[in-house]
Amino acid sequence: MRWSQSLIPTMKEVPADAEIPSHQLMLRAGLIRQLMAGAYTYLPLGWRSVQKAAQIIREEMEAAGAVELHMPALQPIELFDRTGRNEAFGSVLVRLDVTRGDRKVHMALGPTHEEVVTDLISRHINSYRQLPLTLYQIQTKFRNEERPRFGVLRTSEFLMKDAYSFASTLDQLNTSYDAMYAAYCRIFQRCGLKYIPVEAESGPIGGDASHEFMIPAENGEDQIVYCESSGYAANLERAETGRKTPDLSGSNSSAALEKVYTPKAGSIEAVCKFLKCSPEQMIKTLIYVADEKPVTVLLRGDHDANEGKIRRALGAKSLELADEKTIQSVTNAGIGFAGPVGIKCDVIADHDVPLITDAISGANETDQHYKNVNLGRDYQLETTYDLRDACEGDPCPKSGEPMKFVHGIEVGHVFKLGTKYSESLGAEFLNEHEKREPIIMGCYGIGVNRIVAGLAETCHDKNGLLWPISIAPYEVLIIPLKTDDEELMKIAEKMYADLKGQGVDVLFDDRPARPGVKFKDADLIGIPFRIVIGGKGLQEGIAEVKARTAEGPEKIPLDQTVEYVSKLVKEAKAELLAPSAT
Amino acid sequence: MRWSQSLIPTMKEVPADAEIPSHQLMLRAGLIRQLMAGAYTYLPLGWRSVQKAAQIIREEMEAAGAVELHMPALQPIELFDRTGRNEAFGSVLVRLDVTRGDRKVHMALGPTHEEVVTDLISRHINSYRQLPLTLYQIQTKFRNEERPRFGVLRTSEFLMKDAYSFASTLDQLNTSYDAMYAAYCRIFQRCGLKYIPVEAESGPIGGDASHEFMIPAENGEDQIVYCESSGYAANLERAETGRKTPDLSGSNSSAALEKVYTPKAGSIEAVCKFLKCSPEQMIKTLIYVADEKPVTVLLRGDHDANEGKIRRALGAKSLELADEKTIQSVTNAGIGFAGPVGIKCDVIADHDVPLITDAISGANETDQHYKNVNLGRDYQLETTYDLRDACEGDPCPKSGEPMKFVHGIEVGHVFKLGTKYSESLGAEFLNEHEKREPIIMGCYGIGVNRIVAGLAETCHDKNGLLWPISIAPYEVLIIPLKTDDEELMKIAEKMYADLKGQGVDVLFDDRPARPGVKFKDADLIGIPFRIVIGGKGLQEGIAEVKARTAEGPEKIPLDQTVEYVSKLVKEAKAELLAPSAT
Repeated sequence: MRWSQSLIPTMKEVPADAEIPSHQLMLRAGLIRQLMAGAYTYLPLGWRSVQKAAQIIREEMEAAGAVELHMPALQPIELFDRTGRNEAFGSVLVRLDVTRGDRKVHMALGPTHEEVVTDLISRHINSYRQLPLTLYQIQTKFRNEERPRFGVLRTSEFLMKDAYSFASTLDQLNTSYDAMYAAYCRIFQRCGLKYIPVEAESGPIGGDASHEFMIPAENGEDQIVYCESSGYAANLERAETGRKTPDLSGSNSSAALEKVYTPKAGSIEAVCKFLKCSPEQMIKTLIYVADEKPVTVLLRGDHDANEGKIRRALGAKSLELADEKTIQSVTNAGIGFAGPVGIKCDVIADHDVPLITDAISGANETDQHYKNVNLGRDYQLETTYDLRDACEGDPCPKSGEPMKFVHGIEVGHVFKLGTKYSESLGAEFLNEHEKREPIIMGCYGIGVNRIVAGLAETCHDKNGLLWPISIAPYEVLIIPLKTDDEELMKIAEKMYADLKGQGVDVLFDDRPARPGVKFKDADLIGIPFRIVIGGKGLQEGIAEVKARTAEGPEKIPLDQTVEYVSKLVKEAKAELLAPSAT
Repeated sequence: MRWSQSLIPTMKEVPADAEIPSHQLMLRAGLIRQLMAGAYTYLPLGWRSVQKAAQIIREEMEAAGAVELHMPALQPIELFDRTGRNEAFGSVLVRLDVTRGDRKVHMALGPTHEEVVTDLISRHINSYRQLPLTLYQIQTKFRNEERPRFGVLRTSEFLMKDAYSFASTLDQLNTSYDAMYAAYCRIFQRCGLKYIPVEAESGPIGGDASHEFMIPAENGEDQIVYCESSGYAANLERAETGRKTPDLSGSNSSAALEKVYTPKAGSIEAVCKFLKCSPEQMIKTLIYVADEKPVTVLLRGDHDANEGKIRRALGAKSLELADEKTIQSVTNAGIGFAGPVGIKCDVIADHDVPLITDAISGANETDQHYKNVNLGRDYQLETTYDLRDACEGDPCPKSGEPMKFVHGIEVGHVFKLGTKYSESLGAEFLNEHEKREPIIMGCYGIGVNRIVAGLAETCHDKNGLLWPISIAPYEVLIIPLKTDDEELMKIAEKMYADLKGQGVDVLFDDRPARPGVKFKDADLIGIPFRIVIGGKGLQEGIAEVKARTAEGPEKIPLDQTVEYVSKLVKEAKAELLAPSAT
């Protein structure tokens, strides 16, 4: 491609409204332009990178036995009603009505396609003989972001690879899941991304049933709990604290239990302020309703409840915070004064609770707290659980070493869905004994735009982008120093044609601009290799070849440049990973 | 691809609600499934064909110097307000509101992208030095079809290639237009489509400024006026009648002008009924307002006014039918009783009007008509024009031979837009003299889905589809006759692997189904070549190779089959057209 035929509006200045490097660089390098909040046009360079990522995904999906189809963006809202996601999505789901004659038809723009694909499968899969099956698409998704930000990392419209697996047995599901997991690792590796597969919330299937693929990045919106020593990585929802049940024989403190008047101090913060204590000294007492039965959950005052862990510890299907009436019935008090001493329902506690000596907690009486609450004397526990979000410094569940928090950008997610959608949409198969069973599903997403934005966010220096060869808009940039020098241009044109003939993806900077401008733009747009022709080098019969990441150029005889650069490109590709054979 | 890994739900029966062959066959061959009215899922086979068409388009666009980008589907409604298309599109435009914090944001789903691309260009093109430029995308478009029908030929969501050219001079525009026109011819040829480029309404640029690319098809919704002898083809809006101004010296009739009472007979139909005459005997008299001045247009009673032709004949910028008040002021009568005799404004007439002897027309008096109206005596004309839609049998403007009407499916459209969008959205450039001028635009669309549906509509026999090799979901189908015969399957699997190794696109029917079922499905899905392995042939060491369009199979030794079939595929491709070099 000739630069003059393309649209590559580079910018010198950092745009004022771009907060993070990827957003700034994607604007400055002319990859994207905002149309309105949350909607971006991909300009030619940006779109080439997106397409290269999509092609790698496609190759690896096919190699993993998945089959591509294409479902509409417009979906009947009725399908979302049947799975409960119309309500669950809230304002994120983009709803619209269209007029058909006298009728209004209620639709949504697909945020993903679980409903549509399950409905499709329910009509075409009847027998276990037709399973397993994995379908995928690379398609535009719509989600209303209330506060779109970070350039193309969080937009209302984005390109997603979404795959769905259909199985007759858990074994089949696991095989499909493992194949997708392996394909994801290859995809991100081929894209040149540094990624961490992170354990994520498991949902209904339980066990090791969900992973997020994260790019560690300072500006990432997700939090990864990570152990350098063991490699354990999980998202905050999922991460274990590595704590164990401590000695439950009780405290040795001799401080007497003391009731104190704490008027209107119904929160940890208010009590701390009133009693001049720290949250670590407090027992946080939460009343939940689990499968319609009230239960008390005890945590250290500075810890956050993790409802997934609580639900699993209780073996409960449903879990929600109790309403005021329930709280009053088990505490005899208003909201904010619950405590373990004398509470009238089952109690479970986090591993850290028994370690608080002379704790402060609610007294199950409005406007009253206890001081010097101690296990054994004032309340009893038979065991403890991991019921809270992990904190930085918590021991790793594998190595026991302190864990770190790392920010990350989520680029992919694999998930064992189970039968949630097949049950609500009636996607069943006849098993070997001619009995109907719901199809067991998995779903697997990749944010295609996020691969590109994630690379921009993590691969750059002060001068601009540093693309991996596989995702770079072009592999090689040719810069003729003077475009009005006929002899020079003849050589440059021939090199351009010859490199293309070798299958190399070349951008030819044919603009009549000063060398300084061209060099600055070259660094900014970050094409992996550049060839400079002209000046003294030309008189000496050489071209200057420079990798974007190299300190300085190499001088290569003009008649060997094409061969030399083709080899560099081939080697750079091989360094990432070869495509899987289909 | 193995059949068992894909989703190819073929159907024996013709679906009751599918009216036309393409819709029936695309459903029966498992290419598409309806999600809701106007929205279809492309199943794996259908999607492969769409992608192959898209790839051919992409290659030819690049070869023609166009650059790909990708604009959002979500667009701010405000841009449509500025170009007037929010109103002009009416209910076709899909509008939606999304909530951002406390605000509602009004958006539309892009029906095309003239607004967005012009807005983009207005921000990045400043100088004539940056022009010409042609941008394109292959992207999902949304248009609310009040009555979606004909399967994927008319849906609310479809894949479109839309290109936009930007020029500083008319010469540049013409060069881009011609490049796009030539690229379209190559695209449709490579896709194996029989197409006719049809002159279409020219819009503001005038002249030879718009062409539609039509697939002649019985069920096509568009009408083409076509001359077999000269090859002249135009759509109904545009087609010239080939009529010339006749002798205007007047009629020789001696029948006296006679006023007749025609109570409430204010339409051609009512007058014919009342006076027992035929529309051909009548002069249809229409009052228009052209550039704010009333003008009378005379047509033969059975002819339809063509407003584009009328506007051009008058050299008017605006043209609309007059309101009641204006009609009364020029006719002294209510609506429906205008006629040429004594009318009080300028008159222009179609070529066929002077040829009516003893015509019937309104008498410019409510409830009154004239009989025996004759040119020369009762009204005068200095010249006549082509002011009406062409009729079947009208002489071709080139050959004079009678023209035919053919139905067609529109698959592409090239159009010289001029400065409509650049003026309303402020896309200007500085010319060589540092003066601001609006950018001159062209736009160029292809309905990607329609290429596939158009082929299905026109390439089939009673047993199923007949794909051209370039768009066929797969090039070759391998059918092993018994999948439980280990030796046979070993040979079939090797052939499958070897053909793939040769770069041939193979579908392997590994289903444990009866040969009859497989043969029926093979014909239905229409893969160009099939290889059957098994039975007596296998004992003789041969495979049966059959082109989908051939009468019977050829017997090819097993060890030569891969080479033989690869050659057939290569030849079939070459028969269409080689890709353009970029």
